[in-house]
Amino acid sequence: MNTITTAQAAQFLMEHDDFLILTHVRPDGDTIGCAAGLCHALRRAGKTAHVLENPGATSLFTGYLEGLTTPNGEGNRTVVSVDIAARSLFPDNAQVFLDRVDLAIDHHPSQEFFARATCLNSGKASCGEVVLEVVKEFTSLTPDIGRALYVALSTDCGCFQYSNTDAAAHRAAAELMETGFDPYPINRVHFRTKTFKRLKLEGLLAQGMELRDNGATALVFLTQRMIQELGADERDMDNISAFVGQVEGVKNGVTLKETAGGHVKISLRTDPGDLNASAVCALLGGGGHAAASGAMMKGTVEAVRQAVIDAIEQVRNG
Amino acid sequence: MNTITTAQAAQFLMEHDDFLILTHVRPDGDTIGCAAGLCHALRRAGKTAHVLENPGATSLFTGYLEGLTTPNGEGNRTVVSVDIAARSLFPDNAQVFLDRVDLAIDHHPSQEFFARATCLNSGKASCGEVVLEVVKEFTSLTPDIGRALYVALSTDCGCFQYSNTDAAAHRAAAELMETGFDPYPINRVHFRTKTFKRLKLEGLLAQGMELRDNGATALVFLTQRMIQELGADERDMDNISAFVGQVEGVKNGVTLKETAGGHVKISLRTDPGDLNASAVCALLGGGGHAAASGAMMKGTVEAVRQAVIDAIEQVRNG
Repeated sequence: MNTITTAQAAQFLMEHDDFLILTHVRPDGDTIGCAAGLCHALRRAGKTAHVLENPGATSLFTGYLEGLTTPNGEGNRTVVSVDIAARSLFPDNAQVFLDRVDLAIDHHPSQEFFARATCLNSGKASCGEVVLEVVKEFTSLTPDIGRALYVALSTDCGCFQYSNTDAAAHRAAAELMETGFDPYPINRVHFRTKTFKRLKLEGLLAQGMELRDNGATALVFLTQRMIQELGADERDMDNISAFVGQVEGVKNGVTLKETAGGHVKISLRTDPGDLNASAVCALLGGGGHAAASGAMMKGTVEAVRQAVIDAIEQVRNG
Repeated sequence: MNTITTAQAAQFLMEHDDFLILTHVRPDGDTIGCAAGLCHALRRAGKTAHVLENPGATSLFTGYLEGLTTPNGEGNRTVVSVDIAARSLFPDNAQVFLDRVDLAIDHHPSQEFFARATCLNSGKASCGEVVLEVVKEFTSLTPDIGRALYVALSTDCGCFQYSNTDAAAHRAAAELMETGFDPYPINRVHFRTKTFKRLKLEGLLAQGMELRDNGATALVFLTQRMIQELGADERDMDNISAFVGQVEGVKNGVTLKETAGGHVKISLRTDPGDLNASAVCALLGGGGHAAASGAMMKGTVEAVRQAVIDAIEQVRNG
């Protein structure tokens, strides 16, 4: 693997042109915000840059990419991925670039080093902060860059509420806010507003919630039947895995979401002092961070539920 | 009025001793956090300092004052108020100090200047940031000071989501976090935790929610049967009238809560540019502010629902 510093990443970007920026499958605020922020910064530095369209981007995020996307990578020569930790996280339309990524910018400890060069800072709460460090090496910040990277940072640390939030995250937020964009509408949309269907979905999750370990562990179940009866779409279910962790006394929250294809997506958020989420999900074929990890398994929700409970037991007793 | 700078406030504190710190009635995180942070800092500087007990402090906040309070002000000579804007906000047991406050530290533009000297910065999102500036003039920060002032800051800006959050608030948060306390448990308790019963209650409200006016008006219904079946108490229902306003697109949220005595409590939160809540509630025998009003009516939930809908129509068409 070839890891490079933020200064080296900036130098690489300045020595190249015609950029195509890739985001990960089921895109969240961090990958979208990073792509938008980097694209704005590269254009400001006089470069040609586009973000590859991500078909999975919901209306919550597509606005940040307005005027920045391209439907395909033709004619683009320099490929940069942002917030993509693994080959399995490339969207379908980005598969063609699997072995053609020139630079990966990331913050995941589980980074697979699929790119020719990787700028990784796993100490950062968000990839947005890594992109911020890179961007500052070659241009000054604008409100557009500030807004995009604020979306990346704030969504990945739950608006400064998650355990990954550190002093550096707050300092980065201050620096971004000083570019002059208005963060309030962003906070309102991403942290204070829910769709009607989302509220109904949360109601169903609350009613089906299973509490274990004297209330320290909670499991919620999101089935295809619930999704179809409500007519809920991806946006209604965005970041649904954070829901279960709200319950008073719950340290470890498990969300099991049945996919249309007969798989169950496991999402585990833990108090890392109590349980290492990454270790549990590794036993289930997945991975991630100590406080937030995931895995995907084939089978019924009931079977996967038992597998998750067993994996938690195994990590606790191991 | 005698306003003084943070440096002058620090000088005053260093020139005096035997401090009694006052908090406001219905104490929130800002007043409690300021009192605890200032008390820790004064003790660190070798002073004798106590916080006057506040009978209104709930279990959410009393922990921050452990070992710092005194039941009365006897023997204390220097009285300092924190986050108290007006004489009407003195708790009952602090009334005796109404004309004896030596120094008021505050951030409210509505400050009444009841003290001999006032250190006011109305540009700050929280009083905690004003106390931070004062404290740094006479001592270095410890984790105890950091934790207390972080509670003040974070609760007063809705964990960096409200529109009062600025770059300075994030910089203060970073500085406080660098003292080494763990902010995650604080964020969890104050911003991310709901009781299991509260979540179930919200689920029931969501399922019974009625949308009108193309989704601009939403009504939720909280019946005695729901409360009794869940065994929900006052804490589970705290601020429940804010729930309905979360729904995307809703400008005007109505919460109807059936009381044990056969009445229905009406709570109306509106976008005052769209609908004057006070005018609607005046028609129902109540009142309040343009953006938040209430009324109490005798009758069934269904009858009161119709009366509220009629009153909204009447105000819209009047």
